[in-house]
This record gives sequence, C-alpha cells and structure tokens, in this order.
Amino acid sequence: MKSLYYDKGLKYTEDYPKPTIHKNESLVEIIITAICNTDKEILKGYRPDFKGVLGHEFVGRVVQSDDPNLVGQRVVGEINENCGECIYCKTGRPNHCNLRRVVGISGKDGSFSEFLSIRNDLLHIVPDELSSEDAIFTEPLAAALEIKEEFHIKPSTKVGIIGDGRLAYMIAQVVCLSGADLTIVGKHEDKLELFKAFGKTTTETKESYELVIDATGSPSGILTAKNLVRSKGTIIIKSTYAGRVEINMSDFVVNELTIKGSRCGPFEPALKLLKLGLIKFPEIDLYELKDYKRAFGSKAFKAGFRVSQ
Amino acid sequence: MKSLYYDKGLKYTEDYPKPTIHKNESLVEIIITAICNTDKEILKGYRPDFKGVLGHEFVGRVVQSDDPNLVGQRVVGEINENCGECIYCKTGRPNHCNLRRVVGISGKDGSFSEFLSIRNDLLHIVPDELSSEDAIFTEPLAAALEIKEEFHIKPSTKVGIIGDGRLAYMIAQVVCLSGADLTIVGKHEDKLELFKAFGKTTTETKESYELVIDATGSPSGILTAKNLVRSKGTIIIKSTYAGRVEINMSDFVVNELTIKGSRCGPFEPALKLLKLGLIKFPEIDLYELKDYKRAFGSKAFKAGFRVSQ
Repeated sequence: MKSLYYDKGLKYTEDYPKPTIHKNESLVEIIITAICNTDKEILKGYRPDFKGVLGHEFVGRVVQSDDPNLVGQRVVGEINENCGECIYCKTGRPNHCNLRRVVGISGKDGSFSEFLSIRNDLLHIVPDELSSEDAIFTEPLAAALEIKEEFHIKPSTKVGIIGDGRLAYMIAQVVCLSGADLTIVGKHEDKLELFKAFGKTTTETKESYELVIDATGSPSGILTAKNLVRSKGTIIIKSTYAGRVEINMSDFVVNELTIKGSRCGPFEPALKLLKLGLIKFPEIDLYELKDYKRAFGSKAFKAGFRVSQ
Repeated sequence: MKSLYYDKGLKYTEDYPKPTIHKNESLVEIIITAICNTDKEILKGYRPDFKGVLGHEFVGRVVQSDDPNLVGQRVVGEINENCGECIYCKTGRPNHCNLRRVVGISGKDGSFSEFLSIRNDLLHIVPDELSSEDAIFTEPLAAALEIKEEFHIKPSTKVGIIGDGRLAYMIAQVVCLSGADLTIVGKHEDKLELFKAFGKTTTETKESYELVIDATGSPSGILTAKNLVRSKGTIIIKSTYAGRVEINMSDFVVNELTIKGSRCGPFEPALKLLKLGLIKFPEIDLYELKDYKRAFGSKAFKAGFRVSQ
C-alpha cells in the first residue's frame, strides 16, 4: 500500500505491507490524515529511535473489525496504545503507560498510509454532521483542551498565550470559550490578525498574567513565559520539540511559579465542540501522499493528505 | 551596635547605627539569630544588589513598639515587608509584593545584629513553653510547611525527597507527619542515618514517586527529580541558589510533569508544631557575632549567633 515512512529520513513507497489486525483491533482505511508539528520535529531528529509509517492525526473508515458496531463507521483515533496493567494504566493515566506504543511516533505505524490497524477502544465515531475536513482537527483540539483538564481557567482568570501559530490558534479558541481575559502575545502582526476574534493581541506586553500558555513550540518559550507570569502563577508548556534551554530555577522558586507540561487530551469533548461549531479552523490544504514534499512545505494553516474519499 | 553586614563581602562592626522605629513598627533586641543557606548563597553572589545587615532567622524580644501587646514579648518575625496596595497584596500573595523589602535579603537590614526594626504585623509571639533555641527554627520550618500549602500530600501519596542536608531534614519531618510513604534519596550514608526515623533512606532508587521534593540546594536537583517523578506527577523545588541548569523542557511536556517553586511559609502552624514537640531539631551551634568566620564554618546541623540572653 502507499505509505510515507520514516527511516532516518522521510520516504514514500507504494509497497508498504498492509497491516493485519488482531483481537480487539480494527483496520481503518484512511480518508484524511494531517501533518502535525511533532511530525516535523521527528524529521529534525526528535525521535531518533522511531522507524515506521509517520502520522497520527487521521479520519478514516473502519473496513474490518471484531467490533460490529465499528464496521463501516467514520472514526478518529487516540494515539497512545497502553498496556492496561502498569501503575499508570491502573491510576487513570493510560496516556503515560510505561509500555505504550504511540501511533506514528513510537513503536507503531502511523496514518500517512492507506490503512492503519488500531485497537478498538482507541477509536471514536465521528458524528455524521461533522465533515472529515473538520474532524481532522479532533486530535490537536483534544490536546488544546487538555489545558483545561489540568488548570481551572475561571471566567475571571487573566490568561496570556505566547505564540501566533497553529497551536496557539487552537488554544486561543479553547481559552476564549471560558470567557477569560485573554491576550495573545505573538511576533507577527499579520498572523495575529487571525486571533483578534478571541482576545487582545500584541507583539509586546507590559502586563502580567495568572496563567501563561507557551505555544511557541520553541525551547526559549519558557523564558518568555517566566517574564509574563505573575508570582504564584502557572505556566503551561504545550508542544514537543528537539532542543534544550538554560534555566535559572532559582527564579521559579523565588516567584513560586508552577510549570505544567501538557500533551494529549480528551477526544469526546473535542468532537462535541467541533460538531457544535463552537471551534472552527481554516480549511486544510490536502495533497496526495506521493506529493509529500509539497505537503510538508505548505504554508497553509494545516496541511495533510487525502488518501481516500 | 554590633552587626554583621554585607557589602560585597561579609564584615563585622561594633558601630552600625541602631535602627529607629516608625509608626506600626517594633524595635527587637535579638536573642538568637541563625545562619540560613540563603545567607551563604548571598556571600557567593546570589544577591549582588543587597547591601546591609545580613540574617533573617531570629528570636528576639520587643523592647519598643507602638503596639502595647508586643512590648516585652519574645517574638519571631516574617521576612517579607509588603506594601499592602499592589496586585499581590490584594490577592492574598503578600510574600510576592512587587515593592516588598525582605529582611536581611533585599532592601532591609537583617538580624545579624543587636537590634532590628520590623513592622508589628510581621511579628509572632513565641509561646512560653518554647525555648528560643527551638523557636529559632520557626522560619525554616514555615518554609518547609509551605510545601503542604501548595500540594495536598495525602496519607497515601508516595513521596521522594532528594537531599540529605538540613533543608531535607526539615521537609522529611513535615512530610512524615502526613503518614505518607516517604523515601529520602541522599548521597551520604552517614547523613541519611538521621532520616531513618521519618522514612526509607537510600543512595540510589529504582522506584518512582508521585511527588518529588528537591531539597538538594543545587541547580541539578531538577534533573534528578525528573528521573524519579512519575508521569503526571509533581516536583517541588525548595531553596534558592546561584546557578543555572540546562533543561530539555520537552521531557516535562511528554511526561506532563508539574514543577512548583516554593519559598516562605506560614509561621503560626510552625510555632504550633514546635510547641507540641511534633517537630524536633538537633541543637543549634551558637557563636558571638564577632566569631562569624567560625559560625559560617560550623559543621553543626544549624549554626548561629547568641546576641543576648
């Protein structure tokens, strides 16, 4: 089958072996799959041990499954395949399972392909009202919603988001729904235009915030966040990247800051908000798998691949 | 008066001007004052802008005050003199006041001296049952208790403390009172002997902890803590120091860790626990102010100065 796989670099083939499914698994025919920043980081060396089909954001149709309720359904899928037995699985943290495989990121083939095998319990049915072009945002939107799982954003919380890219845009919409006083601190006046519907925008701020969300995707984001957050306030770091940063932890102690790392989030609330039209995104820019170089070079808000209809 | 003051280096004089008091202030005659690790960090360059009498842990007697209830009382004192007007003062975070002066650390003469002037509302009366030699631990114990203000240590929480010094010892006692499963991870078998009353001790651990408290006083403590904490767990960093550390923030995002800086804490609970004998410390090693070199070189659990009886 057609696949884009990673083996030190990104490669296209039409002969990748089609996956077979085991007990409690489904075979999903990919409809649309999208490029995430993590994919680009993997190409830069973020996951040197990974070898296999890349991609973890997808909408597909179940073509084979031992769960009859899934067969024929349009689905999106969570990406962490957990063991069910370890301390994390048994304490409500399956996304942190010690033995987890992560679709298209670690130990498991991903979605830049015609077919994907995935465990039934990781699949979520896409409501009929929701187009595949909108449903493709489920996984990244869920990751943005995870911020609200980890921090109580009150209607009165003063929030700053650093970054003016795609991740910041998703987070800004999520924060906006809380009614909170939101400022987006970016670097590009033109990109910030998109954010004006959700909060105040600025390229420099003298204000301080109770919650600062670092959506820069850059190691230095934490240093900017530190300068913007109030003492006893919280910094949430989203996004993963290859790179280190030098920190004076003493600043964080003196100001008694809380830093929280945040990653994957809940799918059902994401599907609900998308279905209700409460969260909207610019149209995804779609290519064929073989045109992966153009897709990865796309300047669109979101780019990806249309694999089937 | 006799004072130990910092002006690029530490200096002893017998001619430091005696402080005068203003409205709502008390003049305190120092009985005992103790050396804190922060004092040592200041000598290493942690607070290059500070100039004045060092020291912020003290027990004294009020010899002059416009509050008649304070005159003649034995007292300990909080160290952050806040403005009462800024966003921090008005939102329950007076220790983070934008305009604060910190006794013996920033903008205000400290307690390595015969007398100290301090605002009345920062003073706490020492119960008669509590000796000055025990009450001297109020400020550092309060700082250890701040951990419990910031994190709910349940009886079932698995806690690791990194460090086997004085700070770790205080924290271990505080954590011990919660009944939690506690391990102290240190470097020195002999020092760890002291900790066996409060939890398990080890020089290396393969276990993981929901809460890891970094009491190493070293910039690299955060890296050790990261290796010991469970995913979705919390790291609390105590102690301030001069020094930076290089961090891969991505590790914290992937494992969704929470890092909290922690500093000063509540005095009344500290006085209560000391009075009840629930927290005990080895005897303080006391010197005269002029013998400051010996005091700073003391290998005792805690060293300080006896200034008056």
